[in-house]
Amino acid sequence: MEYYSSQISKLIEQLSRLPGIGAKSAQRLAFHLINMPLCQVEELSSTILEAKKNVRYCSECCTLTDSDPCPICSNPKRDHSVIMVVENTRDLAAYEKTGKYEGVYHVLHGAISPLLGIGPGDIRLKELIQRLQKDVRELIIATNSSLEGETTAMYISKLVKPTGVKVTRIASGVPVGGDLEYIDEVTLLRALEGRTEL
Amino acid sequence: MEYYSSQISKLIEQLSRLPGIGAKSAQRLAFHLINMPLCQVEELSSTILEAKKNVRYCSECCTLTDSDPCPICSNPKRDHSVIMVVENTRDLAAYEKTGKYEGVYHVLHGAISPLLGIGPGDIRLKELIQRLQKDVRELIIATNSSLEGETTAMYISKLVKPTGVKVTRIASGVPVGGDLEYIDEVTLLRALEGRTEL
Repeated sequence: MEYYSSQISKLIEQLSRLPGIGAKSAQRLAFHLINMPLCQVEELSSTILEAKKNVRYCSECCTLTDSDPCPICSNPKRDHSVIMVVENTRDLAAYEKTGKYEGVYHVLHGAISPLLGIGPGDIRLKELIQRLQKDVRELIIATNSSLEGETTAMYISKLVKPTGVKVTRIASGVPVGGDLEYIDEVTLLRALEGRTEL
Repeated sequence: MEYYSSQISKLIEQLSRLPGIGAKSAQRLAFHLINMPLCQVEELSSTILEAKKNVRYCSECCTLTDSDPCPICSNPKRDHSVIMVVENTRDLAAYEKTGKYEGVYHVLHGAISPLLGIGPGDIRLKELIQRLQKDVRELIIATNSSLEGETTAMYISKLVKPTGVKVTRIASGVPVGGDLEYIDEVTLLRALEGRTEL
C-alpha cells in the first residue's frame, strides 16, 4: 500500500482488517470516507467509538445493549417465564423481526465447538443456569441447525432437564418457499421425522 | 432496526450507508466493532477522522494526499515532462503498482458523462491545461476504456493537440492471459486495429 500517502494507506490497512472487507473494498471505502462531508465522517467516527464504549452485556440475558437491563428484559409485557436461547444478538434480532415471540431471550455468544476449542465454559451457560432458579416455564433452544448448534442444544438439554424445566427445540425442516428438489437429504429426513398431523 | 438498542441501531444504520455494505454486512461489522478491543476501535475511529481532515488534493497533480505536493510530484527522480492522466487516485495506484512508470500523473477525479450531467468543468481539466504551460513532452491519457473514459480522452486530445504537446492513449486490446473465446467483439476489434509488427 505504499502507492498511497501515509494516512490513506493507514486507513485502507485498518479497514481491510474488518470482516468481509478485502483489499479492493477497503480502497473504495477509504476514498468514499475521504470524499464524505466532514460532519458525516465525524458522526460515523464518534458513533463507532460511542457504541464500543457504551454497549455492554445485559445483566439478565447477556445480549449486547447500551441500556442495562436491555429493552426486552425490562419490558413487563414480555413473558419472563419463557426463555429462548440463541447463539448471538443477530439471531435474537432475527426472531424479534417476526414480531410474534412474546418471551425473553438468553444470548450464549457462541456455540460449543470441540473443533475450535470452544467448551461449555466459554459461552454464557453459567448465566443461563442461574436464571433457571427464577420461575421459568419453558426453555426454547434456538441455536443454529449446525453441528455446533446441535451439540450446544443437546448439552443444554441434558443439563437443564433434571431441574424439571420444559426444554424445547425449534423445528428443523423444509424452509417456507423451499423447493424439495434443491434441499439436502439431511433436511429432508429432519422434515420427515418432524412431521405433524394435519 | 428497532430490534437492537439505540446505539447499535445507529451504528448499523450509518455503516449500511457506506458503498458495498448492505444491511446484513452492516450488522456483522457493527458487532465486530463492538467486540474489538477498545484501543483498536479508538485507533480506527481516529484514523478515519484524521484521514478525512488531513487528506487534500495535491496542488500539482490533484491526487488525494496528506502531504502537498504529493510524494510523486515532489520526487526529483520522476520525469516531470511526462504526465499520465487518470480518472482517480485508485487508477494512479494501479499504475504505480507496476513499478515501471517513471513519469508523473494528473488525476481528473471523474470522467465526462453527459448522461450523469458531468461536463468538462466538473473534472480537474483546468488544472491539467495549466500544467501544460510548463515543459511537458508527452501526455498519456489513461482514462478507463468505458464510454465516459473514451469521451474524456477524445475531449482532452482535441483540447491539447493545438498546443503541440504529444498526446498518446494507452492501448486497448486483449488482456494478458485472456482467452479470445470469452472476449467481447469490441475488444477483439480494438486488438485487431491496434496490432503491431513483430
